[in-house]
Amino acid sequence: MPSPIHPAWLPEQASTPLATAVHVAGTGPLVATVTDEVRAATGLHGGHLEQDPGAARLLLLTLDRARGLAGDTAVSRVLDALDSGPASPERYAVVRSGDRTVVVGEDDHGLLYGTFALLRHGAGEEVLVRRPGHRSRMLDHWDNMVSHPVMGTVERGYAGDSLFFSDGAVRADLGRVARYARLLASIGINGVAVNNVNVHRAETGLLGPLLPEVARIADVLRPWGIRLHLSVSFASPIVLGGLATADPLAEDVVRWWAEAAERLHTAVPDFGGFVVKADSEGQPGPFAYGRDHADGANVLARALAPHGGVVHWRAFVYDHRQDWRDRSTDRARAAHDHFAPLDGRFEPDVVLQVKHGPIDFQVREPVSPVLAAVPATTVAVELQLTQEYTGQQRHVCYLGPAWSQVLTFGLAEQGTRPVHELVQGGVVGVANVGTDEFWTGHPLAQSNLFAFGALAWDPTADPDVVLREWAGATFGSHGDDVVDTVCAMMTDSWATYESYTAPLGIGFMVRPGHHYGPDVDGYEYTPWGTYHFADREGIGVDRTRATGTGFTGQYPSPWRERYEDLATCPDELLLFFHHVPYTHRLRSGRTVVQHVYDTHLAGVERVEELVRQWAALEGRVEAGVFVRVQERLAEQRRSAQEWCDQVCTYFLRHSGIPDEHGRLIHP
Amino acid sequence: MPSPIHPAWLPEQASTPLATAVHVAGTGPLVATVTDEVRAATGLHGGHLEQDPGAARLLLLTLDRARGLAGDTAVSRVLDALDSGPASPERYAVVRSGDRTVVVGEDDHGLLYGTFALLRHGAGEEVLVRRPGHRSRMLDHWDNMVSHPVMGTVERGYAGDSLFFSDGAVRADLGRVARYARLLASIGINGVAVNNVNVHRAETGLLGPLLPEVARIADVLRPWGIRLHLSVSFASPIVLGGLATADPLAEDVVRWWAEAAERLHTAVPDFGGFVVKADSEGQPGPFAYGRDHADGANVLARALAPHGGVVHWRAFVYDHRQDWRDRSTDRARAAHDHFAPLDGRFEPDVVLQVKHGPIDFQVREPVSPVLAAVPATTVAVELQLTQEYTGQQRHVCYLGPAWSQVLTFGLAEQGTRPVHELVQGGVVGVANVGTDEFWTGHPLAQSNLFAFGALAWDPTADPDVVLREWAGATFGSHGDDVVDTVCAMMTDSWATYESYTAPLGIGFMVRPGHHYGPDVDGYEYTPWGTYHFADREGIGVDRTRATGTGFTGQYPSPWRERYEDLATCPDELLLFFHHVPYTHRLRSGRTVVQHVYDTHLAGVERVEELVRQWAALEGRVEAGVFVRVQERLAEQRRSAQEWCDQVCTYFLRHSGIPDEHGRLIHP
Repeated sequence: MPSPIHPAWLPEQASTPLATAVHVAGTGPLVATVTDEVRAATGLHGGHLEQDPGAARLLLLTLDRARGLAGDTAVSRVLDALDSGPASPERYAVVRSGDRTVVVGEDDHGLLYGTFALLRHGAGEEVLVRRPGHRSRMLDHWDNMVSHPVMGTVERGYAGDSLFFSDGAVRADLGRVARYARLLASIGINGVAVNNVNVHRAETGLLGPLLPEVARIADVLRPWGIRLHLSVSFASPIVLGGLATADPLAEDVVRWWAEAAERLHTAVPDFGGFVVKADSEGQPGPFAYGRDHADGANVLARALAPHGGVVHWRAFVYDHRQDWRDRSTDRARAAHDHFAPLDGRFEPDVVLQVKHGPIDFQVREPVSPVLAAVPATTVAVELQLTQEYTGQQRHVCYLGPAWSQVLTFGLAEQGTRPVHELVQGGVVGVANVGTDEFWTGHPLAQSNLFAFGALAWDPTADPDVVLREWAGATFGSHGDDVVDTVCAMMTDSWATYESYTAPLGIGFMVRPGHHYGPDVDGYEYTPWGTYHFADREGIGVDRTRATGTGFTGQYPSPWRERYEDLATCPDELLLFFHHVPYTHRLRSGRTVVQHVYDTHLAGVERVEELVRQWAALEGRVEAGVFVRVQERLAEQRRSAQEWCDQVCTYFLRHSGIPDEHGRLIHP
Repeated sequence: MPSPIHPAWLPEQASTPLATAVHVAGTGPLVATVTDEVRAATGLHGGHLEQDPGAARLLLLTLDRARGLAGDTAVSRVLDALDSGPASPERYAVVRSGDRTVVVGEDDHGLLYGTFALLRHGAGEEVLVRRPGHRSRMLDHWDNMVSHPVMGTVERGYAGDSLFFSDGAVRADLGRVARYARLLASIGINGVAVNNVNVHRAETGLLGPLLPEVARIADVLRPWGIRLHLSVSFASPIVLGGLATADPLAEDVVRWWAEAAERLHTAVPDFGGFVVKADSEGQPGPFAYGRDHADGANVLARALAPHGGVVHWRAFVYDHRQDWRDRSTDRARAAHDHFAPLDGRFEPDVVLQVKHGPIDFQVREPVSPVLAAVPATTVAVELQLTQEYTGQQRHVCYLGPAWSQVLTFGLAEQGTRPVHELVQGGVVGVANVGTDEFWTGHPLAQSNLFAFGALAWDPTADPDVVLREWAGATFGSHGDDVVDTVCAMMTDSWATYESYTAPLGIGFMVRPGHHYGPDVDGYEYTPWGTYHFADREGIGVDRTRATGTGFTGQYPSPWRERYEDLATCPDELLLFFHHVPYTHRLRSGRTVVQHVYDTHLAGVERVEELVRQWAALEGRVEAGVFVRVQERLAEQRRSAQEWCDQVCTYFLRHSGIPDEHGRLIHP
């Protein structure tokens, strides 16, 4: 008997408002999904579907149908509210007027999202209008068709196997995918790339012989308003098409991609497009043919254009065969160096997909300057839900605050224009789910999936409010005090993780390869371009224009000046931008080395508190959830101590400076 | 068409002495092998087999047959020489007397080895008598039946796949094994354990359903005087036998092993015995049942005793879940701590197999004190041919001098009794061959197989003489100057490898996992017990009794005093036994840090010289050999520079002390 699957934030009790007569009307394929949802929910709760809108207490309508009921007072209030703002696909409005509740979607997507919003929040007497902050809200799955000997079926996956693939094929039973799609729809996700950006031999076939299988997945996603995307190899014309070249300017290559796009469109009429990792960490790309990345991306975009798909072209291009002896090369510079000169050369349907920071999803990085450097290019920001560098779903680490900081960071126009206004290509997240009973391994890591959806929809949302919303939907039936405890545990969990792992913007002090646990020098002498340059005097990377790699010069003002100057550089990014002595004084008045001791020791104490907080919930939450979280917290406790001790010992051995407070630092 | 296989040190031209009439006579199964060898060789060179001993110019005889020809002058000279010394199995004597040459073997093994000795050295007018320094001269293959996802088919193998196994089965075609067995016989090897000491599920079957396949391998080894041994899992009674326990004192376990030994004896009448890695790095063992290693080894030995096999029980037992914060635990102590108290408790047919150093085959270690600590136990010393920590057959590293130092080291009785007199259980080597065209990946690594055989037979042999013998047999047909160059390149290659990798007895500064290339802190904070404790003041492990782990106390005098005292500890082991400041002065007058700079930079220069020396042989050796060695030297050059730079930078960053001579050390 398979394990039961955790309902995440969509438990049955969320459907209580449907204990009434419900009228659903609209145009578009998703209306059937809404009707099915209502039928199931009303059946459970004693309500029913009502044909007569006048007799219904709850009306769920697309905008065109609502206009036909403009004589209805409640409906008319919603229409007035919608008409007073700009039209927007996927927009919805909700109101409770007397004993009637009305949800109107601008289109069927809007109706679907409005319905889930009603289920989650209920309705108030003021008309609530919501429009998405980004049109594209997408998840990238790094799923392999064939289990990789080291990575398994999901690269950087910490939650079981792939939902989509097994043993080199698309799963016969896609029931779990349907449940997943419903979860995603409930948080507004409208695109999913199903396979790993590192495209191996097996996945190349998704563009060819396996197309009917791809169509099967798309058929499961479609009722939930989700378009399927595929990661493709730039070498597909060779590997799959048998051509002699993948040169993007070669005629037969152009023709091959056009035909591939046509085949895809035939099999999957709403195909979302391609995701491409090219010339990166060994993946093939246009450089092999003396072409640049605009040439490469454009050939794919032109192939898709007649059918409406887009190309997500990843900006994660750098030299992964760097020489640690060469202090002038700086991996942080690479994406900007590669792509800023190409601005204006991309086809309209190319979306440049930029990781949020200049390196690679570290616990703390500055925002990537590329996001402000290509104004004539459509850009998307890429976030990482799967906790590769943030505890691998064994540590509690709620990433909402980290993402919120990125999305609301005033990168452009003298600090006045936030990232979320720059990313017209939307928000992309690397998924964190798998076949695990709790979807995400650590049950509390479900919060990151939820928060990604919430922030992709509304990048200005308060991550604490989002957290509380998630916790309420997931644990609310157990009482407000349980929700309070969960929120208290999680609200600062990213800051806690940072405190015992990566102080002051240092990155990559992790075990090479799997990236779990500490290894301060693990990447120091490798070809990966990820160094901290610690010696007996100090630590950090000098990325200034004055004396370093000049990376600060890739930023617009005021950041180019602020990061350049030790006096204005934020402490939390100090060692990202500057090499300083261990005795350098931070704004707190503490030295760097003392800060390391203090934060690491405090971080372990905070984890010990987490253990106690959770222990108090025994018997208050489902036993399966309790035990799983308890196990993970025990590992987090062990691992946090290991992080603390290794990092502190490393700093003691290098600096020779003991803790001011005389606490034990292992020699 | 399969690649040709390199003949190693047995090229056809070695058979020249057989261009004559040869008489072979003797008792024992190996006489047929000698006859076959002679038949092939004489056929090639214009000689013939001669029935009449009086008409033969070369006589190859076992001792009993020689006594029947005592009237022959030449034979009688040999008999006199043999009778004047103690009898010894496998002994042989060779003489040239006038125009006749006589080889007499004490038994058929002796005749086989004497025949190969004649082919290699010819015969002189003085009677040469040779007896083996050790009865047991054995190779352990760490071969897996099923390819391990990381290790492949040969654990720590750098020379292709397993000779014995493929795809979970014994190879159908064992022709390559027959060629290998002939090579081994030519250097006196008389035992081979065919499978990895880490016994996985598949290999457990070798004791059961796969016995007929084991017998096929034994049948191929037998004509060359080689007995087959098997590595077995201590948990075999559970895994294979279906018992509830593997407790060595449980009656059904005792019975199961007895039956297993009987099955083996039936299938392989000359079965050599078991090799066991128990309670080590995750392998099961007697500790799980509250029993000690004498209990564990004895149950297997008693099972084998009726049939004549022995148990090689490995002493490589230590805590591989050590805590780096605990400075009192010392992996170097582990084997002695575990096994010294058990002395006298082992059955006679148990051979305690002890790695030559206390840690794990590092470039430089002191000799293991266990070899002198169990006088009532039969011990064997384990050497590692496969270059796990010595360049992985990409670097030239002739290990003869290292092994010679171990075997002739005066460990016991106030330094007067060398290791080779202590190891009554013989010498065991971890094999370095595979399906590679050159057997060993690097063609020059064949020297290590040859030298292992030579030193296992005669532990007092001069490794330079052995090297010259190997080089002459392998390259002699290309001219003496080629042999000179090869010897000049290799004679100090172990010292060279040491100079650019591991100074002053530091170990384990290698990349974790695969162990290739530098990573100074790679094992520093791991659970493996392999640390150097470098900080800004100094480096090294304090293993003294006065202030450290007390490991020096495991040695007999004079070593316990000599290693304890900084004034008498040999420089090459300084950091193995002592933690010293970077400014500590060595006997050379140089400081530790300057020694590190000097030796590493000189090591790279020496490798550059190797490249030039080999380049001069272009056109003088077979093209295939030339190119392969040239490629490997290029990688050795690159890797040596990487070692030099990482280690020097590490020491500079920690000590802050620049090179006295102002050479570039990367900051």
